This record gives sequence, C-alpha cells and structure tokens, in this order.
Amino acid sequence: MKLDKLVGERFKEKPSDCVVDSHALMVRGGYIKFVANGIYSSFMPLRRITKKIEAIIREEMDRIDGQEVQFPVVMPASLWRESGRYDSVDNSLCRFQDRNGSPMVLGMTHEEAAVHLVREYGNTYTRYPFMIYQIQTKFRDEARPRAGLIRVREFTMKDAYSFHTSQEDLEKYYARCYHAYERIFARTGIPETIVVQSDSGMMGGKISHEYMLLTPIGEDSIAICPSCGYRANMEAAQSIIENTRDAVSEELTKVSTPGMHTIEEVCDFLHAPAEKSLKAVVYQKNADDGYVIVFIRGDLDVNETKLTNYLGENIHPAVITEESGIAAGFIGPVQMNAPCKPLILFDESVRGCNNMVCGANETDYHFTGLDMQRDLPDAEYHDFAKIIDGGICPNCKKHSITVSRGIEVGNIFQLGTKYTESMGMTYLDEKGESHYPIMGCYGIGVGRLAASVCEAHHDEYGPIWPMSIAPWQVHLCCVKAADEQAHSTADRLYDELQNAGLEVLYDDRKVSAGFMFSDADLLGVPVRVIVSPRNLKENVCEVVTRDKTYSEKIPVENTVQAVKELVEKLLKACEVQE
Amino acid sequence: MKLDKLVGERFKEKPSDCVVDSHALMVRGGYIKFVANGIYSSFMPLRRITKKIEAIIREEMDRIDGQEVQFPVVMPASLWRESGRYDSVDNSLCRFQDRNGSPMVLGMTHEEAAVHLVREYGNTYTRYPFMIYQIQTKFRDEARPRAGLIRVREFTMKDAYSFHTSQEDLEKYYARCYHAYERIFARTGIPETIVVQSDSGMMGGKISHEYMLLTPIGEDSIAICPSCGYRANMEAAQSIIENTRDAVSEELTKVSTPGMHTIEEVCDFLHAPAEKSLKAVVYQKNADDGYVIVFIRGDLDVNETKLTNYLGENIHPAVITEESGIAAGFIGPVQMNAPCKPLILFDESVRGCNNMVCGANETDYHFTGLDMQRDLPDAEYHDFAKIIDGGICPNCKKHSITVSRGIEVGNIFQLGTKYTESMGMTYLDEKGESHYPIMGCYGIGVGRLAASVCEAHHDEYGPIWPMSIAPWQVHLCCVKAADEQAHSTADRLYDELQNAGLEVLYDDRKVSAGFMFSDADLLGVPVRVIVSPRNLKENVCEVVTRDKTYSEKIPVENTVQAVKELVEKLLKACEVQE
Repeated sequence: MKLDKLVGERFKEKPSDCVVDSHALMVRGGYIKFVANGIYSSFMPLRRITKKIEAIIREEMDRIDGQEVQFPVVMPASLWRESGRYDSVDNSLCRFQDRNGSPMVLGMTHEEAAVHLVREYGNTYTRYPFMIYQIQTKFRDEARPRAGLIRVREFTMKDAYSFHTSQEDLEKYYARCYHAYERIFARTGIPETIVVQSDSGMMGGKISHEYMLLTPIGEDSIAICPSCGYRANMEAAQSIIENTRDAVSEELTKVSTPGMHTIEEVCDFLHAPAEKSLKAVVYQKNADDGYVIVFIRGDLDVNETKLTNYLGENIHPAVITEESGIAAGFIGPVQMNAPCKPLILFDESVRGCNNMVCGANETDYHFTGLDMQRDLPDAEYHDFAKIIDGGICPNCKKHSITVSRGIEVGNIFQLGTKYTESMGMTYLDEKGESHYPIMGCYGIGVGRLAASVCEAHHDEYGPIWPMSIAPWQVHLCCVKAADEQAHSTADRLYDELQNAGLEVLYDDRKVSAGFMFSDADLLGVPVRVIVSPRNLKENVCEVVTRDKTYSEKIPVENTVQAVKELVEKLLKACEVQE
Repeated sequence: MKLDKLVGERFKEKPSDCVVDSHALMVRGGYIKFVANGIYSSFMPLRRITKKIEAIIREEMDRIDGQEVQFPVVMPASLWRESGRYDSVDNSLCRFQDRNGSPMVLGMTHEEAAVHLVREYGNTYTRYPFMIYQIQTKFRDEARPRAGLIRVREFTMKDAYSFHTSQEDLEKYYARCYHAYERIFARTGIPETIVVQSDSGMMGGKISHEYMLLTPIGEDSIAICPSCGYRANMEAAQSIIENTRDAVSEELTKVSTPGMHTIEEVCDFLHAPAEKSLKAVVYQKNADDGYVIVFIRGDLDVNETKLTNYLGENIHPAVITEESGIAAGFIGPVQMNAPCKPLILFDESVRGCNNMVCGANETDYHFTGLDMQRDLPDAEYHDFAKIIDGGICPNCKKHSITVSRGIEVGNIFQLGTKYTESMGMTYLDEKGESHYPIMGCYGIGVGRLAASVCEAHHDEYGPIWPMSIAPWQVHLCCVKAADEQAHSTADRLYDELQNAGLEVLYDDRKVSAGFMFSDADLLGVPVRVIVSPRNLKENVCEVVTRDKTYSEKIPVENTVQAVKELVEKLLKACEVQE
C-alpha cells in the first residue's frame, strides 16, 4: 500500500473532545471518524487491525470446538419477550417497529437468538456439549458513550454460547474458555490483562469473570488484594467491615442541627467521626417509584449493583417529594413514619453499632446515642457497601485491598438455565427424562480491544501496535524521494519486501523526514525501514522498531532478509505456548 | 469437523413454506433458521460458505485498489437528510428514535456514510481516484421478503464507493470493477452470470448494470436479444413498437358497451383486436394522491419504473373514488373532463394510430374510430411500455427479444454527483477551482450470492457447492462404523487428510449408508471419500464427486494424495485467468 493513496487524514493537534489517549490517537491517525454519539466509521488501518483481531479470536474459538454461526442484528420483540428481557432491560435495548408495525429490537447480546437457533437441535443429551459463536455488529443504546472506541453504542463483538447437560460439564468448558481468553489477550498484545470476579448483571447467572486491562482511564473499578491475589470487580467484591462497639451506650437524644443536611456537616457540628454516623441513601424503584432507604456507615458508599441484585429490580436515585413525608437530610431509622412507607435496609457496616448519629426524621434535628441493638433490635443487615482502598480482603481477611481502574476487554458468564427455562428449551437424558440445558456465554468487543491495546501500548506520538494485530508489518520510508537513487532503491525494496510475504506500507511522498516520521508514528507499524541518500552513501538502510528497542543499519542487500526475520521474531513474541 | 458434532438438523421433507429450491435445501440441510419475516440465523455450514465468498470478494476489491473500511449499521437521520433520501426513500428505510429521541436509520446502503467518511480527505484533486468498500450487515425493510436468502430484510453486503475527478476516470474505473465482478461470479462458481443494463432507481445516476443469474425463479425480468447480444433489465429496456395506421380513418362514434369493464371484454364485444384499443392505466402520486392516467395499446403493459422515472416521483395503483369523476372501466382521452384533473400521458405504442377503441368517460359507453392524429393532435408520447417477448430489439431492431427471468447477484452504478453535491463534498483542482467529485457504487449481497450458487448448482438431493466456496472440501464417510477396521482406517484418513491441509467433514456415525449419504448430499461437499468394509476387502476407498462426474476406487495408501490432487483440480476450475 502506498501511503499517499491511503484514505484518511493524519494531524498533529489533539482534538478537544478526546479525553483518553487511544481516542485522540485514533482520530489523529486516521483510524476512525465520528458519525454520531457513540457511533464511528473505521478507515482502512483500523479495519486491518480488527480483521487480525477477529482472526485470532476465531482461531481460539475454533480451538475450543466453537462453531461459527450468525445471528440477526434485527430481531423480533417476541424473541426477547420469551426470555422476559423485552420488559426487564432498560432503554439501552433499542426497540422500534418495522413497516408493518411489528415490534423489533436491535441485538445488544444474543442469548435469545442462540437458544432459538439450537432449541430443536439440542433435544437429546447425545448432542451436548456444544458451543456456537458469531462475530457481528451490535447496538447498545448506552446513556453515556465515552472515550472513543472504549464505550460506544455500535460495536463489533464476538459472542459465544455454550450448552451443557451438567453444571460440572459447564465448569469444565468454562475453564477451557477462560484459558482461550487468556490466549486471545496475550496474542493480541495485552498479556497483562487480569481476570476478576464480576457481577452478572442483566445476563443472569451466578459465576462470571471479567478480563480487565488495568489503566487509569478505565471505567471499571477493581478490588485487588496484592497479598493473596484476590481480584474482583467493585460491583462484585464483598465489603467486610469490622464494626466497633463502645463499651457504654449513651442514651438516644434528639439534638438540634439547624441547616445541617449532609453527613459531613452533621458530624462536624456534633464533633462525631463519620464512622459513628448512619447515612441514609434514598432510591426509588423504576417499576413503581416506591422508595428504598439504605442506612450505611457515614464514611462508606452504597454499591448500587449489590442493591439492585438484592432487590431483584432496577432503581434510580430518589426524587424526594413533599408528599412522601421523608425529611430529606434528616432521615433516620428511629421514628420513621413517612406516609410513603419506604423499604428500610441496613448495610453490614452498621450491624450492632452504638453511640451513632442519625437523622431524627424531623427537619433540623438528629439523634445522638443510637444503639442498633437496643433501638432497632429487628434490623436485618446485608452487604450493600462499596469496597474501599485499604479495606479487608474477602479472601485472606487482611486490610490489603487496593482499588484500581480498568477496561473490561472481555467477560465470561455461567448463565445456568435462565434462558433455556424461560424459552422452553429442553433435552431428554439417557432415561428419557426432560431437563433444561445449562448455558455459558462469552463476549469480547473487537473495537474496544483494539482501543485497549492502543491504550496499553502507545507513546505521545502514536500507537505502538503489537506485530500480531498491526495494520501493516513494515513501514517503508523513502526520505528525500526526489533523490533518484533513494527512490529507485525504495521502490525495489517495496517489491522485494512484498514478495517476501510481508505487509508493507510505503511512503514515498516528497515531504520532510519529520513529517514522514510523525505520520509513521501515528500509524504505529512495528518495523520501520528508512531509505535515504545519506544511508545509501554507506550502502545501508536503517531498520528501527516503533517501540525504539531496536535500531540497526543494515546493508541494503541484506535488508529484506533482516526485516523478514525481525517481523517473524516480533510475531513469535505474540504467540502463546500451549 | 466431526459430523455428529455439527450443530443443526437435516431432514428429508420439503418445508411447505419453501417455494424455491435453494430455500428448501438450505432449510433441509441445516444452513439457515427462520427468525422473522426476511430474517434468518445461519448455522456453521452457511457461515463457512459466506466467509469464503467474502474472502474472494475482498481479494477482488483489493486487486482494484479498494480499501476496506467499515460504516455504521445505525446512522443518524441527519446524514440521510443531507442527501435528501431521509424523505425520498419509502418505508423500506427503517427509521426509529434512540433513547434521547434522536431520529436514526438502519443502513440499507451507505452512499451517505461513504461521503461523510471522505468528505474532508477528498478536498484536493491529488488524492483521486480512490475506492472504499465494506462488508457489513444491512437492513432493508422489504415489503415482500421471499425465496429464503434470495430476498431478505437483513443481509450481509459488500458495498463499494469510488470517487473521481472526471467522468472519463469514473468510466475507466467502472470498467475495472465490471471485470472484477465478472471474476467474482466466476470464482464463486457462477461464471454463467450475465451483465445487463439496468435502471438506477433510488440510487440516482444514469448508467448502471446488473449481474444476473438466469433462472426461472428469479424475480427480475431481462430482455435479451440473441441476435445482437443486447441485454437489459425489463425496467430499463426501451420498448419499440411499429405502429400501423389504417388507410382510412373511421368516424369517432360513441357505442354502448354495457357492463364491459376490461379491455378484453370490450374488444371481444366490439370484435376489435386488442392492438386496436387504448387501455387506460390509472395511478396516483404518492406525494399528493394526484391522478395519473397512462393510455397504452390494449395488448401492452405499463412499466412502472419508466413511469416513475418520467414523473420524477413515486406512484401507486389508483383508488378511483366517486369524487374523482373518473369513469372507471370507461376511461378515454377524448372528452375527459374529470374534476380531479388527472395528468394524461400517452405511450409510444399509440402514436398516430387510427380506428381505435377507447372509453367514452361515461359508464357503459366506449368510442370506436378514435384517430390520435385527428382527435388528439396535441398528444405527446413517451416510452412507458414493458418490452415483450418477440418485441423489437432496441439495438439491432430485429423482432428478436426474448424475456428471461433472473436473480440480480450484483450491481454497479455510475452515480455522478448526486451525493457529493447534496452533501457538499468538493475538491480543488490544479487551478484552485472547486468541483464536486463524481462517484460510482458497486454492490454484492453475500447471502443472496450463496443462495444463487445453490440455485444454479443443485440436484433434488441437495446443493452441489463449487470447491471455491464449499463449506468443506472433503466429506469422509465411514460406512458401517461399527466395523473396527473400517473405523480405524477412516480415523487415520481423517487425520491424514487434515494434515494434508484439506478441510474435512467426517461422518463416523453408526447410521445406514443411505442415511449418511443423504446427509452428505444435503451438505453438498464436492469430494466424498467412502470407507467401508466392502471397499477395504479390495484395499480401496471410493472417491466420488458430489456432481457425479467422477467416481474412482483408489488404493487406501494413495487416497490422500489422490484426494488432494482432485481438490486442487476443482479449486483450479474455479480460478479465472487475468
């Protein structure tokens, strides 16, 4: 490919709307173009990268006996009604009507389509286990697309679905897929990806894992215990609190706290530490706007995923109306008689505590001396708190938790029978008895993976693509292309490198070396070959790698062979042993 | 791949809803599953076929300097408003709102997205010409999906867009693409595909061609002149009529034709041949329901595409109301005073004719003796008629036209500046003057192509896939798999054939040979290797081709080599010379 024919523009200035590096570099390098919020077109360099990623994913899915199929992007609502998700999923599921007024949805995930495809085939135990997968465009109407390709609305995804006749068999296959994913991330150039326990969210099922690339720009928070190796998504990490109880319980006393609405203000005013206060966090259920109040220790925050999972329904931060009778800013668990009859929940962090500050359900008044055991003997406690930096590891019980940020580059779920039961898929076992197959599902977003690799491997000048997914393997630069000898040598090398089976991007534009190299940096091709009149005086080409770890002057006649070996070495570095 | 692990079911009975062979065979063979009207999921065998078709298309697009990109499936309505198509395209364009109420469309074609992607890049003449293409899912909300994958609503398509600075350059590139398409159809196994002139329809532009696979189940009609080689889609073919005029014109006479509504009834009643009658065909404009009446010779039919093109707007068959004042069944061009003021048009077929029968605009009355020259001297004539079998060839003028049916497997368009002008894409030429680039666009539906190949190459038992796109290259059958020697020999051959680089589907199920072979017929793999105890007694394997042109008994030890050579020969047969 001649660079002067490559469609797309490269430029120096960081676009003002790009807050993460991979986004800025992909816009600056002519990889993507914004079409609408969370929707991009891809230019050739990115398409070449994603095709290579897709090929690696296919190889690894085929290695674990996956069968590539294809599901529709547009599905009838009836399919999603069968599973119940037509109603349960929020408006990230895009619903519309076709020309005949039939309700349709855009596929954001394909459990329903997978069950539909194999419902008849999988009617007897002899056909299990099996796994089907596709690589296909999906649309999820995200409320907040961000960070370029990291969180988009339209994306290409590999989604796989396995079917089993026993939990044991699912777990065996899950382990194979777990390792296949490790291979995929290693082969695409981010072997540093870690696996964490996660919450299954709208997918259902109990056990699930996320593959996380740790980076400050990630939108997920991960609790890691360096001591024992425990790793979990914040949403799934159990929060353990060692509650302290004072020897003597003070009396419950109503005190005036005029105009003190926040927990900080109240604690400050009463000279109480935040850990000795009860914070009320108020939500409403999406279904009926019913109020839910969670009491949690003043220094902690509610993990809404845990709360949603406990309730089994979706919630949103409350709008507290006058009619509700809730005294916003002064809410407490004692003498709570709001006419709206809120559901009252307690986090584990306040179990059995005494001498606590809490609201008195009366404007400008709080209680001091609350004793949970004495004053609220019937309280039930659940884990609703976000784990914190320095918190207790749920595994080794040390105060060792660190919270890091990461990008979720893949996920795997043990789905159980959620979809096969709801959609009525059964098989007959050896004895002729009918059962629901047990499912697993396994996803990787292709574009997000490309952006994550860029995030992990770039410098201020551009991406540094791993050889396995680089848009081209070799970037041939002819510096001072007006020089006849340089140009003819570079032309010849272009042919010879291609004849050696290498993917070559050739820049013979009559531009300055600086201009040429900054374009090359933005395209991030791992091996660069520089032909210039100065080099040719010594009868050499410069061969350098984009990551600057290698730079040699090589006799012109040996260049093709040396480059071929270098490319092979770099390809090999992306390979994974069995 | 072991056949007993292949997800999907095969069966004997033709499904009652399948009217074309490729549809029935693809359902019976476990290639596709119906999800909704015009929407299918694909099982692995079809996905393997489409991947090979996609690879061939990519190679040919890359050969003509195409750059693979990717456009979104979901686009903002604003993009389609720029070109004007948001309003002009009928409800085959799927329109909906996203979660924020922003109007969006599902991509059914991507001219707008293509212009959007390169609008800035293409701002100077030095960057031309260039071509970008994608292979991506599209959704076109067809009113009448039919025939399985032949006409669907969701489909995978290769769509390419080229940009030029002169009509001459476009034509040069158009010719390259024309040949690339011939290569694609030859390589995928349907070299018999013919190219015909076509109507550009909603795409705009003047010159376009369709690639047609002739088959009685096709939904397009093609006018072919065997004499001179002229070929055109019926929609584009000029209808030439040699009008005859009697020497003596009779008088215009109103006659009673009680209850005679159709042209056949009237001609029968008046003993006039249909060629001596004027038929009125009534439409309404979609925009304002205004009436349009086309008068055409009684034995001919109106080509609605020609009429739409003439009018420059869409029409539908009329609903004739009482208020319109149109005397349905008795409409004529003389004394036509309907209050609805219809637009009156005449087809070339009635130019200057005399002694014609026509309606008298009065219930139960017709005229005889109509003389177009005498009675309607101001009439203007245009070509609105469908060309007919035995009609005059517009090229060689012989009465040689035959009308055949065909499936459109691809199309190419010279778009001109329709999109660049409407979307404000310009470039500066050498002199610094601004111009609109000239575009071409080029489409191939991948699934329809697969179905068309099946339509062209099958027997009553199943598809006969060409080697170039076959789901597997070799189908290994172990007949009487309970026999230990047969099974171990087949197992060994399975390994060896795969080690030889062949794609092998291996059937070692303990089923009857008949059952095994009918499954193999449905999967249509071109080369079959049969291992059986009976063959092994002679130390041979049977090697046969699915199309029955080859059948040999080959010593077991030579089988792998013989099969490898046979596969290579069949692959070569699909290749095309430069």
